[in-house]
Amino acid sequence: MDTHPAKPAAPVNLTAALASFEEVYSPRIVARMNDYDVRIAHTEGEHVWHVHEDTDEFFLVLDGRFDIALRDGEGKESTVVLHKGDVFVVPRGTEHKPSSPGGSILMFEPSGTASTGDRYEGELPDHVDSTTGHELA
Amino acid sequence: MDTHPAKPAAPVNLTAALASFEEVYSPRIVARMNDYDVRIAHTEGEHVWHVHEDTDEFFLVLDGRFDIALRDGEGKESTVVLHKGDVFVVPRGTEHKPSSPGGSILMFEPSGTASTGDRYEGELPDHVDSTTGHELA
Repeated sequence: MDTHPAKPAAPVNLTAALASFEEVYSPRIVARMNDYDVRIAHTEGEHVWHVHEDTDEFFLVLDGRFDIALRDGEGKESTVVLHKGDVFVVPRGTEHKPSSPGGSILMFEPSGTASTGDRYEGELPDHVDSTTGHELA
Repeated sequence: MDTHPAKPAAPVNLTAALASFEEVYSPRIVARMNDYDVRIAHTEGEHVWHVHEDTDEFFLVLDGRFDIALRDGEGKESTVVLHKGDVFVVPRGTEHKPSSPGGSILMFEPSGTASTGDRYEGELPDHVDSTTGHELA
């Protein structure tokens, strides 16, 4: 059995990584730790209402503004407005819909988590990618 | 059974959170997601050689510079030099020793992970806190 530790992946600079693609709401995986991904995305426009039944979702706003509309257990809606440097966790099972006038975010989530959740409402607009995260080019 | 989603925690701004304490190498928990913590710390000076046998450790440099000396399976040392916006993962089982001329970092790790690992070398200097993370004041 090989008990040697894994070789570390090279560092990734988030500014350079964000400059390497333009698509909004199309997360790129910048790091993996245990069975989690660290993903980044450009944000602009309306995402879709969706829910992750089995996992919380962590957001850090890297630039710009990022809003998250949330529905509580009674279906009542509220919106969390996030700016650069803000962190926020959407609890598992909470329906939410991101939107943004423009910006970028970092997310932590279990590998394999779909960007549009276990289910989403309505039609998927062209500018929203349903993905478990793309590799950096 | 209560199937209502958990109430979300309020957003935390990292700049404000970092300004709320001064101690170096004394991580504060800014968010929790699933069974993981998101922690931040000021960095300055030498940490200690230590290892997390059972978990990878994710770092994002928020400001300044943060270096991580690493030992490979043969005990050979190398150092990864990280600047603002760089992300890096120390693989589980890898002995490492952070150091910094000054800065701040964000970490992602399983709740309960000790800042000095499962074991560390030598005496713990006064400026290194052995903790599983403190609450923000």
